[in-house]
Formats: sequence, structure tokens, C-alpha cells
Amino acid sequence: MEGVVDHLAFERNKTQFDVEEMKIVWAGSRHALEVSDKMARLVASDPAFRKDDRPRLGRKELFKNTLKKTVYAWKRIIELRLSEEEASKLRSFVDQPAFTDLHWGMFIPAIKGQGTEEQQQKWLPLAQKMQIIGCYAQTELGHGSNVQGLETTATFDPKTDEFVIHSPTLTSSKWWPGGLGKVSTHAIVYARLITDGQDHGVHGFIVQLRSLDDHLPLPGITVGDIGMKFGNGAYNSMDNGVLRFDHVRIPRNQMLMRVSQVTREGKYAQSSVPRQLVYGTMVYVRQTIVSDASLALSRAVCIATRYSAVRRQFGSKQGSLETQVIDYKTQQARLFPLLASAYAFKFVGEWLKWLYTDVMKRLQANDFSTLPEAHACTAGLKSLTTSATADGIEECRKLCGGHGYLCSSGLPELFAVYVPTCTYEGDNIVLLLQVARHLIKSISQLRSGKKPVGTTSYIGRVEQLMLYSSDVQKAEDWLKPNTVLGAFEARAAKKSVACAQNLSKFTNPEEGFQELSSDLVEAAVAHCQLIVVSKFIEKLQQDIPGKGVKHQLELLCSIYALSLLHKHLGDFLSTGCITPEQGSLANDMLRSLYSQLRPNAIGLVDAFNYTDHYLGSVLGRYDGDVYPKLYEEAWKDPLNDSVVPDGFQEYIRPMLKQQLRNARL
Amino acid sequence: MEGVVDHLAFERNKTQFDVEEMKIVWAGSRHALEVSDKMARLVASDPAFRKDDRPRLGRKELFKNTLKKTVYAWKRIIELRLSEEEASKLRSFVDQPAFTDLHWGMFIPAIKGQGTEEQQQKWLPLAQKMQIIGCYAQTELGHGSNVQGLETTATFDPKTDEFVIHSPTLTSSKWWPGGLGKVSTHAIVYARLITDGQDHGVHGFIVQLRSLDDHLPLPGITVGDIGMKFGNGAYNSMDNGVLRFDHVRIPRNQMLMRVSQVTREGKYAQSSVPRQLVYGTMVYVRQTIVSDASLALSRAVCIATRYSAVRRQFGSKQGSLETQVIDYKTQQARLFPLLASAYAFKFVGEWLKWLYTDVMKRLQANDFSTLPEAHACTAGLKSLTTSATADGIEECRKLCGGHGYLCSSGLPELFAVYVPTCTYEGDNIVLLLQVARHLIKSISQLRSGKKPVGTTSYIGRVEQLMLYSSDVQKAEDWLKPNTVLGAFEARAAKKSVACAQNLSKFTNPEEGFQELSSDLVEAAVAHCQLIVVSKFIEKLQQDIPGKGVKHQLELLCSIYALSLLHKHLGDFLSTGCITPEQGSLANDMLRSLYSQLRPNAIGLVDAFNYTDHYLGSVLGRYDGDVYPKLYEEAWKDPLNDSVVPDGFQEYIRPMLKQQLRNARL
Repeated sequence: MEGVVDHLAFERNKTQFDVEEMKIVWAGSRHALEVSDKMARLVASDPAFRKDDRPRLGRKELFKNTLKKTVYAWKRIIELRLSEEEASKLRSFVDQPAFTDLHWGMFIPAIKGQGTEEQQQKWLPLAQKMQIIGCYAQTELGHGSNVQGLETTATFDPKTDEFVIHSPTLTSSKWWPGGLGKVSTHAIVYARLITDGQDHGVHGFIVQLRSLDDHLPLPGITVGDIGMKFGNGAYNSMDNGVLRFDHVRIPRNQMLMRVSQVTREGKYAQSSVPRQLVYGTMVYVRQTIVSDASLALSRAVCIATRYSAVRRQFGSKQGSLETQVIDYKTQQARLFPLLASAYAFKFVGEWLKWLYTDVMKRLQANDFSTLPEAHACTAGLKSLTTSATADGIEECRKLCGGHGYLCSSGLPELFAVYVPTCTYEGDNIVLLLQVARHLIKSISQLRSGKKPVGTTSYIGRVEQLMLYSSDVQKAEDWLKPNTVLGAFEARAAKKSVACAQNLSKFTNPEEGFQELSSDLVEAAVAHCQLIVVSKFIEKLQQDIPGKGVKHQLELLCSIYALSLLHKHLGDFLSTGCITPEQGSLANDMLRSLYSQLRPNAIGLVDAFNYTDHYLGSVLGRYDGDVYPKLYEEAWKDPLNDSVVPDGFQEYIRPMLKQQLRNARL
Repeated sequence: MEGVVDHLAFERNKTQFDVEEMKIVWAGSRHALEVSDKMARLVASDPAFRKDDRPRLGRKELFKNTLKKTVYAWKRIIELRLSEEEASKLRSFVDQPAFTDLHWGMFIPAIKGQGTEEQQQKWLPLAQKMQIIGCYAQTELGHGSNVQGLETTATFDPKTDEFVIHSPTLTSSKWWPGGLGKVSTHAIVYARLITDGQDHGVHGFIVQLRSLDDHLPLPGITVGDIGMKFGNGAYNSMDNGVLRFDHVRIPRNQMLMRVSQVTREGKYAQSSVPRQLVYGTMVYVRQTIVSDASLALSRAVCIATRYSAVRRQFGSKQGSLETQVIDYKTQQARLFPLLASAYAFKFVGEWLKWLYTDVMKRLQANDFSTLPEAHACTAGLKSLTTSATADGIEECRKLCGGHGYLCSSGLPELFAVYVPTCTYEGDNIVLLLQVARHLIKSISQLRSGKKPVGTTSYIGRVEQLMLYSSDVQKAEDWLKPNTVLGAFEARAAKKSVACAQNLSKFTNPEEGFQELSSDLVEAAVAHCQLIVVSKFIEKLQQDIPGKGVKHQLELLCSIYALSLLHKHLGDFLSTGCITPEQGSLANDMLRSLYSQLRPNAIGLVDAFNYTDHYLGSVLGRYDGDVYPKLYEEAWKDPLNDSVVPDGFQEYIRPMLKQQLRNARL
């Protein structure tokens, strides 16, 4: 890749597998790798996309810089006649949250999914040419998780054939939508539909917010930015907004009417289009979140792995070099499970993509049978992967020692920009409770002979699994896929069954569900971890070409599963799935796996094929030339503009000279 | 406290204990509460100490604002003739990292601890009047944890009776010292002492860095700021610095010579002062870190608890109010163990303060017997409490839902400013390995009849503990202090013994230690958790006045211990200390404890007695008036200075009008 020196060449020479082939596995296909590689280089080589100065920019500068980059990116997309796939990759490598994320990611899909044919014909061309800019105004100051509790109203006025959009309370103010604060001209607004005094619940409406001429808010609309968020740079490039309506009128045909309609007379009606399609969209959005989790985690792991190979500390013998930090077992035991998780999330993300197409096909054929399972599965995987990624990025930062705390390490911004994922599109705990509900339901339906499908099908073998105890006798037994799978299935099944049994002791099931919700969350986690492990194992059953590639993936799969087993040892022991001795053998195996992986660690992160621009980290540089660049980077701070700091004459000097009494501060 | 409305009054009315008495327990004494209360109000009521605008300030503005506040605080300290205790409290409530932290916290203590009588007489008055400003320049670009690997040299030149301070390599650049970048006039510089070609290892030297007149760096000195760090505001108020020496000469009497000396002839000699005194200082510094952990965690917990009582979501029945988020069991199971941890860390911090005085008394009487144990104990507690606090703050942020991501919640900055504590003054994993070494040594010395002391004394009962199995039969048995203590002691002892046994299988013990280091870290954690639990239990054996106060502390103690037991269930089960059924009973007990604590949650965080200024959080406001204030706060963002954002004409308009082709971006 870039540069001339390569301080990590000796590491790269150790690699025991074909890195170029692994790049294809990571990207998903040779084609995907090529597109991705081309777009990454295009962004990295264009100074307009520079981002290393981002942490030093004030809010206004950062925001203006974002407008510039975003519009410039759009210009390049048009000039280069990029395909949709290329354009989306290019936007992702620009790597700066912006209104376009919501425009392309939520506004347009919402119209596609919930708009009628006519509505699509009217609005999509405008949006796709960016003649209008849209956002997705759902969350309110007082309601996020509980969408059904939204307070904004859309009251039909049959006299004028209009809806009156209104914010009746302070807490009904729209709050958080990205792109809303300063940029969007339009929004999909979610509001309670009221016709003839009757509340029909929450529906979506297309509302114009700003004039297309002077960008001023239209009459009755109050709109602004909600203020600074976590971190330097990070999501502060985004204008998350606040929005209030004072009886704003929109034509009736701006209600999204694919699923429900309001007629000219004010009658509320359902169309023949199945409501369940909405869940299909949810499966889609959450699937992209899982893919993005592997992206974010792999960036952090790449930085921490490379710097752990560069950094040396302790252990020098007679003037020789000190030990590379990556050679310490404590470092390996924290870092390698995260490397394994990045790969695991990649593959489960790929599989979710398949699941989405499968579900959509079935929906179109009016087959709703797999929808609840697919819905629970994506909800759970969104929760599992985003929580693990958020924690994993921060762990990678700590693994870089003090220097990980510098913005130039790239890790603080990566963390700050990532963490909201644990909350948006479904709070991670709320989602796990949905998974748990599905599991309990699947168990209770066994009695009526209903067979669980897809990722819950193991529950169909519950009687057998309740009797499970592992037959592991030596450490190497833990390398067998079926051994691992058996233990994870039994643990998940036993945890769910235990919850179901405890729930049955309550006369009021809902009260029981509340009381036992922490146990239910644990059961859901066990179920979701099983899915990730089993999809990794399935991936390994495919034909994977390239010298040593499959073997490295087998190592990673075992590390992923056994490190989880070690972390949740209490689960496996208390359910009697394994014995303490078997747990200890798994731990021995894990140590040996770390040693086997060690020489390939740099190769495995090189396979992500990230440019230095995209990584945005001095510590994670491909060439490992960390210290000179850290030193160089320091002098760019605004504080170093002058040798004597601003404030010396007014504050420091009077203090040193003992002249504070008369100083005016 | 402040304000007129109180949206949390109904919560405060539920409280079953005397909050005012609890405030005294938390503060440590009535006197401490009074001082603390007075200083907190003094800072909160003075607009000069306003900090809510901090996240919006650019680096230069923030830094100048810090100089102003710091010098103003010093002026007030002089004007009000504050005592040392009051001054220190005042500085802490100003709550903005600054050069003074290092001046008072490291520079002055280093001279006191390592300087001779003469050196103290010369330098301390200058420092105490702030006629000079000092920092502590130890860490280098290439060396942090491995202090003995520092590269800066101090070569004695007998011709001129001077030391020549030099930075021989890039990685020898001093890097990180707070206050160094822009403010300090002096530094304690740690460098390899070289006399007559011989390297005597790392020693401390007082070096003047900047002119006392014009503040310019002295000849041979290159100094600057190392750049932006994690978070908005946070540690960016501090000028962490980089420093290079090009053969800088200082007089011989500026080597800190209390423990070792260099004579006029260049002879290196040790004084009669025990080297171990240095460890005494380390015990002191780490003890303050543990106290600060309880401070930081309690702030986050206070914010999350209050907002969890204000926030409602789901569960509304027929138009009634929705359920307070704090009533959900999943919320309680995440929040209440953190509340319990804040109290637990407070008490173990108090005990460490006692330990420090005890150690110092013994050192002065030439009794070094308890030093290794005290050293291991403070190292371990520093690691345990800071890791738990960093994770705990982020968990509190997530417990506040989306709004926790806003800077106005106070939590992002609290997290960003806290996390470096896990790395500085000993990386947390490195420290746990030191603890483990001490544990293994204590076990191996049993054979020679050496009795373990202090917090390791349970290891003296190892044979008995190896046979331990819990006698818990019903959930309430877990409320007995001895039952809890027994399980924690047995778990810690068994984990250490298992490590010692596995280590003995290696022919090279050091190799074994490296190979098993992850297990050793776990054993150290088990030991440290035992210390915190046992000190909490000891605290409860004291006489604690006030209606219901002691009972609440008993609840918190049980919650702390049993939530740890649940989290580390694998440890307790695999060592055979408890059975799965007993683990399940502990879990049942925990749920019941959460219900008992629930009505007192607001009272327990009110007892921290934090002003709204100090908390710095709209979500954590004492009066619970969250939503109107969040709304108000949003409009203060610079982006809201204009309705149409800067950049509209240049970027957004050409895009909307499809005029990008000719636009110059």
C-alpha cells in the first residue's frame, strides 16, 4: 500500500496465509473488493476529503466543512457517473456523518416502502436528484423507544382536504433527527393521525420545512440544531435537529398511504398491502447496522493490532529490543477475541443480507411464517453486535496505552461516533427483551405442536438439549464445530427453558416478564451468541480458496466461540452443559489458539484493506512509522501557533509576579 | 437545594432514611461535609466558574478560559484566606483539569518526598506562592509503563559541576506531562543519571524550562502541546506537553538528592533514607485515585438515577402516566450495582487513607514489613475502582437513552475526562499483574512459615478455604456478612492457588508467569473484589447514626457483593465455592434487594450533596425539570446563531438548484 518505509515488514513476512485472498473473503467477492478499493483510493487521494483536522474544528467550521465535503462528493459522483454501489461506497469512505446519510438511508427508503405509486413518482425523482433534501422525523423529546407514545398530531380537516400538523406539548417536539437542524427542506414526520376526533395511531407524512428559495423555515415551523454531542468531530458534523409545528397545513396526498389511507371524506381505511412490509424495512435497516458493526470494530482492531506490534515495553535483555506489546498474553487475550468478533460480525452480517432477501421474497408471496423469527433475529443481532463493538472500540483504545487517548490515534472519534448505535433504531436492552419474548413464545408453542423455524429451530430439540452434557475430554476436542455448537445450543435452550419455567409461577404473565426481565435478557444474549457462532461455522463449510485462508478463519471461529464460553462460564456451568474441568480445557485451548494466531495478526488486519485515510490513525498507520508522525502531528495544534500562550500577560504573569491583588480577572 | 419547582418531590417523600445523616457518612464527617458544602456553593454561585459553555469552546478559547479560572480561583483562595483543606476542595469543585493539578499534586509532593532539606527550603516557598509553576516530566513518547526504560540522560560534568540533560532519541521526548505544554516554568525531569560513563538508572532533577520574565523556553529546550485529546472540553483544558532537551545544563544541586546523591567529585552514593519511602508516595497518590473514582462514579450515578426517575416510557394504562424508567428491573439491575459501587469505593478509599498513615508511621520506625502488601493492595484497588468507574460512567450514559449522548447531559465529558485514569499512574492490567505476583509470592512463602498480613491474611487460612463450600440454603442466607465473605475469600484463595499450581508446572517460572498472565489477572481481580467487599462489611460494623442510614448501607453492601457474584458466577462455580442452586438464590435475593432499594434511590444520590453546577448535567438536575431545560440549552449552540446556516449559498443552494457542474467547491 502507501509509503516507502515499512516498519511492519518483518511482521508481514511471518504471515502464513494468502492476504490477497483473505481480502476477497472480507469484502464478500472479488467485485466488491475492486469497487471498494477503487473508491477508497479515490477518496484518500483527494485533498478535499482530508479529515485529520476535524477534531480541531469548532462546531460551525466543522459543519460548514461537512456541507462542502458532502456536496463535493455528490459533484464527483455525478462527474464520474458512478454506479449506485460505487456512490454508496464513496460516501462511506468520506467517513463524516452528514444529512445525506438520512436522505439516502431513511427519507428515500421510507417513501419507497410506505408511499403509493403516485407518491413515489412525484417525490423520488426530486429526492434522487437532490432537488429536495429529506430527513426522518420520528423521535421526540419525550418519546424514543415507545414509538406508539409519540405526541405530534396530524388532524384531518375535511373542509380544506388538509392535515394540520401540530406539536401540542413541549415533549412532542421532534428531537434528534439527523439533517433536520439546518439542512433538510423536507421531512417524513411521524404523527398521530386524527380524523373526526378519532386517534388512529402513528402514521408518516411528507412535510416541507423550508423554502426552496431562501431556505427559511415555512410559517408555523420552528427548527434548529439540538447542540453538541459526544466527542471531537464525530456526530457534531451532523445537524441533529429540533422541530415544532404550530398548526402547519399539508395537502391530504402527503400522508404516506401505501398501507392506510384517509379518503377525501375523512374516512380511515387499510389497503390490501400487508402491514408486515414495515417489518421487512426494519430487517433491512438493522442488517446494515450489523454490517457497519463489523466495519467499525475492524477499524479499531486494525489500529490496536498494528500499534501493539510497533510498541515495545519491558522485557529487554542485555540491550536487545524490548518485547512487542502484542506478544504479551494479556494483550492477546483482550485483542484477539475482538479481531475474531470483527470477522464473526462480518459473516453474520452477510447472512442477514440473505435473510432479508428471503423474507422479502416470502412476503411478496404472502408467506408471513418466517417474519417473527427474522424480526427477532435481526433485533437481537443488532443489539449483540453494536454493544460488543462499542465496548470493543474502547477496549482497543485502552490497548494502545496512553497514546490511544490522543485524537490523532483516531480511536476517540471512532468510539464517540459509534456509541449512539447502541441506542438508535431500538435500544439494545429493549431489543433483547423482544428476542426473549419470541423465545418464550416459541417454547410455549411447542406444546401445540408448532415447530420453531430458522435460528430458533434448535428449540424444537429442547427435550434432547435439556439432557445435554459435553463430552469434551481434552483441549483439542473444543476445536470440533459440533462440540462448540452443542454447548452453545444447550446453554441457550436451558436458559430459555429456565425463564419459561420461572415465568409460569406468576399468575400475571406480564408481571412475571417484568420481574424476570434481567434473566430474560441473559437468555436472549445466549441465543444471539449461538446465532453468530453457528453462522461462522456455516461459513467455514463453504469452499474457501487461498493458501491458509480457511485455516485462519477456523482459528478465528474457535477463538470467538471459546472466548465467549470463558466470559460466560457461569452460564455454561450453572446449566450443567459443561464441567469446570471442561471449562478449564477450553481456556487452555484458547491460549494455544492465541499463539497460533499471533504470527498472522498483522496479515489478518491488512486483509481489511483500509487506507490510512480511512483509518485516520497515526497509531494504525500501514507502515508502522508511528512515533515521528505522532511528534509531527502534535505541532499542528492551535495552541502551538504561538510559543507563549494567549492569556500569559493577563493571567500567568500577574500570578508569577505576585500581583494578583490588583489584577482584574 | 436550588430552585422552586421540584419534580422529584414525590420521590423524595418516599425516602425511608435520614438523608442529612447519610450526607455526613458520605462526606466522612460533619466537618468535611460543612467544608465541602461551603466550597461547592461558593464555586456554584460565582459566574466566573461557569462551565456549561465548555463543550462549545475551541481549543484556544478553552485553554485561555482555564488559565482565567485557575488564576481567579487562586486569587479567591488568597483573598478569602482559605485553609489548605478548603483550597483543595475549591479547586476540585472548579472541575476543570489545569496545570495546577500537577503543580500541587505532583511537583510539590515530589520535592517534599525526594528533595533534601535544603532543596525543600529553596523550592517549596517559591512553588507554594506560585512564583514558579512546576510539572512532573516522567513519561516519554516511547516509554510509559516501563519507567526503567526511560531514555532521557542527565550526564554529570565534573568540570563545571553540572548535569547535562539531553534527549538522545525522538522516543526520549517527554510526552504527556500535564501543565508542561504552555504553562510550567519548571519541571521535575526523570532521566538516566550518568556519572563517569556509568548509568545509575532513573533519577529526578529540577529543571527550569521557561524564562520567568517573558515565558520563552530557555536555550536548548523545545516545548509544546501534544494536541487534542478525547472528548469535548474534558482534558483539552490541560496543556499536556512534549519536551526535548539539547544538552541543557543545570547545577548539580538540582538533582533531587534525598535518597541518592552525586558528590562534587562525581561519586554516586545512597543516603541512609530508605528507598522504600518512594513506595509510600505511590500508596498516597493511588489512594487519592481510589477516592476520586467514587467521586466520578457517584456523579454519573446521580445523573442517571435522577433522570431514570424523571423519564417515563411505555406501560401507560388508559391515559395514565407511563412507567418511570427506574421501575424497570433491567434498569435497576444495571443502575443499582453502580450506585452500590460508588458507596463501596468511597469506603475502601477511606480505609486506604488510614492504610497510608499506618504505612508511613511504620516506615518512619523502619518497619517495612507491611509495605509490599500495602503496595499490592493500593495498586490493585487503583486498577479495580478506575476500570469499574470508567465502564460505569459509560453505562450510566447509556441508561439515559439518547439524551445521554448530548453534551448537555454532562456524561460525555465525565467519561472522556475520566478514562485516562485507567492508564496513568500504572496501567490497570500491569498493576493487576503486580498484585498477582504478590499473591503467588504470599502462597509460596506459606511453606517457609511466613504469615501473610493485612488484606492477604486470609491466604494464611488457605488449607481451610480450599475445602470451603457455601452453606446457603435460602435466598436470605446471602444477607449474612460471613456467608458473603466466606464465598469471596474461598473464591480468591482457590483462584490464586490454582494459578500457583499451574505455574509450578513450568521449569522457567517467568515463562509460566507470562503464559498464564490472563489467569493471574483474574485471580488478582478476585482478590481485589474481596478487599472492597470486606472493607464495606467492616464499615457496617461501626456505629452509624441516623434513622435508617445503616440499613440502606447494608442493602448497598449486599447489592455490591451479590451483583459481583452474579457477574463472576463462573469463578464461584468452577472453584466449587457455591452450587448453581446457591447462585440462583443469590440472584433471587438481588432482585428483592433492588425492590427494597428502589424507593430510596433518589435519597441515596441526594446524599452526595452535589450542586447542579458540579454535576453539570441537564438530565441530573436536582429539581428534575429536564425537558424545558434541554430545549432551552439546544438554542445556545453556535449553529443556531443564524437560521440559515453558513455554507447555504456556497454549497446547499447550488445543489438544490442543480447548478453543481459550474460550482467551485
